Amino acid sequence: MAGNSIGREFTITTFGESHGRVVGVLIDGCPAGLALSEIDLSKELELRIPDNPKIVSARMEKDQPQILSGVFNGFTTGAPITITVENKETKSSDYKAIKNLPRPAHSDYPARIRYGGFNDYRGGGRFSGRITVALIMAGVVAKKLLAHYDIEVLAYTQTIGPVRSNKKFTVTEIKENRYATATRCPDGVCAEKMEAAIIAAREAGDSVGGVVECVALNMPAGIGEPLFDTLDGDLAKILFSIPAVKGVEFGAGFRAAELRGSENNDAFCLKDNKVVTTTQNAGGILGGLSNGMPIVIRVAIKPTPSIAKEQQTVDLATMENTQISIKGRHDFCVVPKAVPAVEAAVAVTLVDHLMRLGKVPKILKEP
Amino acid sequence: MAGNSIGREFTITTFGESHGRVVGVLIDGCPAGLALSEIDLSKELELRIPDNPKIVSARMEKDQPQILSGVFNGFTTGAPITITVENKETKSSDYKAIKNLPRPAHSDYPARIRYGGFNDYRGGGRFSGRITVALIMAGVVAKKLLAHYDIEVLAYTQTIGPVRSNKKFTVTEIKENRYATATRCPDGVCAEKMEAAIIAAREAGDSVGGVVECVALNMPAGIGEPLFDTLDGDLAKILFSIPAVKGVEFGAGFRAAELRGSENNDAFCLKDNKVVTTTQNAGGILGGLSNGMPIVIRVAIKPTPSIAKEQQTVDLATMENTQISIKGRHDFCVVPKAVPAVEAAVAVTLVDHLMRLGKVPKILKEP
Amino acid sequence: MAGNSIGREFTITTFGESHGRVVGVLIDGCPAGLALSEIDLSKELELRIPDNPKIVSARMEKDQPQILSGVFNGFTTGAPITITVENKETKSSDYKAIKNLPRPAHSDYPARIRYGGFNDYRGGGRFSGRITVALIMAGVVAKKLLAHYDIEVLAYTQTIGPVRSNKKFTVTEIKENRYATATRCPDGVCAEKMEAAIIAAREAGDSVGGVVECVALNMPAGIGEPLFDTLDGDLAKILFSIPAVKGVEFGAGFRAAELRGSENNDAFCLKDNKVVTTTQNAGGILGGLSNGMPIVIRVAIKPTPSIAKEQQTVDLATMENTQISIKGRHDFCVVPKAVPAVEAAVAVTLVDHLMRLGKVPKILKEP
Amino acid sequence: MAGNSIGREFTITTFGESHGRVVGVLIDGCPAGLALSEIDLSKELELRIPDNPKIVSARMEKDQPQILSGVFNGFTTGAPITITVENKETKSSDYKAIKNLPRPAHSDYPARIRYGGFNDYRGGGRFSGRITVALIMAGVVAKKLLAHYDIEVLAYTQTIGPVRSNKKFTVTEIKENRYATATRCPDGVCAEKMEAAIIAAREAGDSVGGVVECVALNMPAGIGEPLFDTLDGDLAKILFSIPAVKGVEFGAGFRAAELRGSENNDAFCLKDNKVVTTTQNAGGILGGLSNGMPIVIRVAIKPTPSIAKEQQTVDLATMENTQISIKGRHDFCVVPKAVPAVEAAVAVTLVDHLMRLGKVPKILKEP
Repeated sequence: MAGNSIGREFTITTFGESHGRVVGVLIDGCPAGLALSEIDLSKELELRIPDNPKIVSARMEKDQPQILSGVFNGFTTGAPITITVENKETKSSDYKAIKNLPRPAHSDYPARIRYGGFNDYRGGGRFSGRITVALIMAGVVAKKLLAHYDIEVLAYTQTIGPVRSNKKFTVTEIKENRYATATRCPDGVCAEKMEAAIIAAREAGDSVGGVVECVALNMPAGIGEPLFDTLDGDLAKILFSIPAVKGVEFGAGFRAAELRGSENNDAFCLKDNKVVTTTQNAGGILGGLSNGMPIVIRVAIKPTPSIAKEQQTVDLATMENTQISIKGRHDFCVVPKAVPAVEAAVAVTLVDHLMRLGKVPKILKEP
Repeated sequence: MAGNSIGREFTITTFGESHGRVVGVLIDGCPAGLALSEIDLSKELELRIPDNPKIVSARMEKDQPQILSGVFNGFTTGAPITITVENKETKSSDYKAIKNLPRPAHSDYPARIRYGGFNDYRGGGRFSGRITVALIMAGVVAKKLLAHYDIEVLAYTQTIGPVRSNKKFTVTEIKENRYATATRCPDGVCAEKMEAAIIAAREAGDSVGGVVECVALNMPAGIGEPLFDTLDGDLAKILFSIPAVKGVEFGAGFRAAELRGSENNDAFCLKDNKVVTTTQNAGGILGGLSNGMPIVIRVAIKPTPSIAKEQQTVDLATMENTQISIKGRHDFCVVPKAVPAVEAAVAVTLVDHLMRLGKVPKILKEP
Repeated sequence: MAGNSIGREFTITTFGESHGRVVGVLIDGCPAGLALSEIDLSKELELRIPDNPKIVSARMEKDQPQILSGVFNGFTTGAPITITVENKETKSSDYKAIKNLPRPAHSDYPARIRYGGFNDYRGGGRFSGRITVALIMAGVVAKKLLAHYDIEVLAYTQTIGPVRSNKKFTVTEIKENRYATATRCPDGVCAEKMEAAIIAAREAGDSVGGVVECVALNMPAGIGEPLFDTLDGDLAKILFSIPAVKGVEFGAGFRAAELRGSENNDAFCLKDNKVVTTTQNAGGILGGLSNGMPIVIRVAIKPTPSIAKEQQTVDLATMENTQISIKGRHDFCVVPKAVPAVEAAVAVTLVDHLMRLGKVPKILKEP
Repeated sequence: MAGNSIGREFTITTFGESHGRVVGVLIDGCPAGLALSEIDLSKELELRIPDNPKIVSARMEKDQPQILSGVFNGFTTGAPITITVENKETKSSDYKAIKNLPRPAHSDYPARIRYGGFNDYRGGGRFSGRITVALIMAGVVAKKLLAHYDIEVLAYTQTIGPVRSNKKFTVTEIKENRYATATRCPDGVCAEKMEAAIIAAREAGDSVGGVVECVALNMPAGIGEPLFDTLDGDLAKILFSIPAVKGVEFGAGFRAAELRGSENNDAFCLKDNKVVTTTQNAGGILGGLSNGMPIVIRVAIKPTPSIAKEQQTVDLATMENTQISIKGRHDFCVVPKAVPAVEAAVAVTLVDHLMRLGKVPKILKEP
């Protein structure tokens, strides 16, 4: 593992660049016996791009996943699963002009240093949000495995810029409504305000960010590895691989820092002869281990760095200060696209930790 | 690595339990040729415990590190460095009574599930805050390596409960003043309010949390590994191994989610013919790679779970609801003790990533 | 890494099955700036199949490698390199009949147990010798990296069944003559006897094995990682991934066990002011580290398990003893095909260890 | 893992130097609930040193293991187990004189290059055979785990120099008689000849090597990880970490290279309704997976490099050719001491692979 892999038992490695031939993922460690088809994959990829060109990039290609290995007669074999998606609609000419002009808040500048200029800079190359396609495909496999154990992972948009839904959603509302709105907020009224905020930013040549919340239901207690491969640590790590993520918190998160112990501690009690907590400030994780309650994660997504407004940068060829205005296709808010990526990231990590403890066996029996 | 190790090139493994014989760390991958002594280690460990019994646990033992391997004639040899500290003042009787009573917000309950009851539950065992002694010792070695490259890691207390210092500290202020106050806040006036907040909580049989901020100075640009071993992802992961951490953010962090791109993007410009940014919302990391600016991390620490106030829990032996009031020695606020642990965690990860890119060679030449 | 990856800095992961869509390799950790083309790859793959249908399988398809990621403008980018080769001429019908009849000395039986019958059994599936195509492609990249440092890896056939060349070959003879004979033995006279031995076996419905020797020239001293990631240990490990390998030895190898210390010890002396050894019984490795002399490895290859002769096996569907005679295309001796695979395996491991010590930097400068 | 760790689920890391404070091992991943005491460990360490000063080093100290962590109330807790043994009888003065004189066939020369001279050279330091004490202690834990599943690992001396026992031993003979002779050969008559061979070498100021054979009984079929973490590959890798090992082979090994397929292939047949093989040329491993038959490994041990006879070497301080005669305590044959080390290495790897497939659960139930 030289940096492009994650997970110990359920290990995924992504490859490909935004404007290269393909984006793909290799999954090593998937148990044998899981039903898997290209349709499973394409269905989830369709959820990635909201059906509303006002708020997302004009790149509307339909991604067609191809399973290159690891599936035989409709079931996973236990061998590595390789899945690719071709990059069809790449307009690389958009990018050549800015080869030497690092876009503010993008990876262009450190990537150039890191790779001595050999990196594929087109469209952000390896650092593009498009790479989340690979993560999402791995997430499809992970979520199918979790479904064997009734574990569900559900992400949705909680805020866009200053717009926040203060509704406390039921699981059913999240499940049924999050993909019903273009912003992936299960609250239709709030979703409209969110769209308006995105459009307002776009019209100002600007962009907005937001917060994605993710819950994982039915996780058994005791999952995680002290002291370094904690469940929260591993979830945070994979979430920071999603471009634009700047913060991750669990349960009460940063707010916990302002509470007293008596307010923040979740008391234990019995419910149907099961140990549960009366409140949910821990977000389902104590000491790096799941405590049997729903896992609750919040992820801060910064505003899309690509904006039409003029910005100051440096021409790395001439080493002079200059201006840049980004014209290529881009999103005015990546939060909606981040929702399935967050879900995938969390699912991949939960499967990995369940497998580490033998809770998902190496050979599946159909239910 | 079955969970107790972290780092790929500079790999640390911690071992030991709060009330066992020792707490220790094994460092594999430290370059040969670094001057290292037991005094280096004990000096840093002394900073862990504020000289103010009003705000921390009564366990005031002085930790005496012993280097068991990997150092010869005062220099590291390139072989694994093993360092232990004996646990001298353990009062295990305090804990036996509560073996079956999981303390709210502690790891007791999931740990019991995870290990089938075989875990050493005394004082939290492997999950105790005391285990940060091992991390801090690894941090001493990491910081000595970073010093070869003029890289500094400085953490300090930013908030305790509702008390916050809004001063923007200079590097000198942080360096010189953070350990001058018992709360590790470089602002003496604010520090007094913080102490008062801790004492007030303690008198109410309660506890408080806070936020630790950490800056890393002089990091070169281009350090980190896309896409999964990102610098921010790896920093977040190790920080979540510190007990009580519930959130991690970089630069503007969660606040970035509310900004527009034009506000959040850090413009590039030239300064002394070096590419720098005019603002610092990225916290020094773009696309998982350092961008050459200071790295800025904020870590949310929850209030200490151990409180004297009565709390609801479940007796796991009888499976009945019951009450618990925690009487053993404990801290009323772990934020001051978290400061050197955060510093150590960040230093360990920075060294690891620098080594991954060959920026710290396997054999050191004395400066 | 769930088993299909090897290497820590130069990490390769192979995927694909003998009769699936592709066989491929993903290389993570290749430095940026290496010139690499599909022609580089296809040239080496051509060496895999001796131009003599009398001694190898009739599957004579030409493999056409496709670089899917990680190369931009003719140079590696530092991102993962994915390369695939389509499986064109697969005759799966040959295999269906024997789904339940494990072939003696093949992996069929343990693979069925391991994967609960979900594995792709066609042509040995994931365990087929065809998978060495992936290893060889990784080897091309590794050998191009080694060439930057004048390190050469040269394998050749030393014995086929009872036929052995006792000539001590010069480096030039090995380099120029090994691929000049169908058996990959640099000694033309001996090569003819080897071919005859293979043909004789084939005519008897049988097969033969042999020994491949491999030398690595110009390796610097001090490369390797004690105590577990030894250079010899890592070389042995990767060599056992080549199907049919049953033994690995270095230098005098098993013969050393019969010598006295005074006979086996390689004395040190100065030559051109460089420390060298007068003999070569260590095979270039001492204490798991290279000693600066050529590395010499011998690899035992068992006779091809697939033979026309009738053999006893068990019908796993009926659990009855039965007979099997293998009719599909297969090699009568895999030793010639193993030669480039051994070379690739050794090259991959040497690059990995050189990178671990920073001897191959992350960004290459063209020579 | 920077080189001193091995195993993925059952991960051991050794530390310490021959003449440092301790030699030790850290085991991460041992299931909770295994009974373990210091007596278990010391009993096995006593088997390491034959009770015959004529054939082994005069360093006859009794090693007293100390469990520093991971055991509570007599059972493993699931946390890292750290065990140390103090180095009591070190005569470092013996070695100082030869600091600059690399001993032929020892690691002195490459280690000096590798660590820039910072390595602890006393008694071979980290490369000493004494480090196998750490491996053997890990092996005790591994063997206790295997015993839960009736899996046994038995090594014994097959040859010493030219002396070979051609007897085919029964399992009972190996188990009962191997430690009854100082050379660890279960054949008493042959053992006497072996002792004589060692004494003859010693009297000539010389040393001898030999071959250790190891069998693992009752391994289930299907254990191992294709394609790179093969069972044979991982066994070979760990075996090469034992000082003086120069070759590893399975089943017929190098002899298989001379056989025809019809001779070498092990036919399958039913025995008590179980699939078995009629012969044992595969050594229990096919395609990197166990096939349910006993695993048979042979390990070539070179003659001890330390000999009294004068040898040629280079003075690295003056860079002049010179002579060396090794006077310090040393063994005249390390084969007997290698027997428990081979057993430990094999046991550690088998446990690791069983755990990877979930065959040893994370929490043990007492039988």
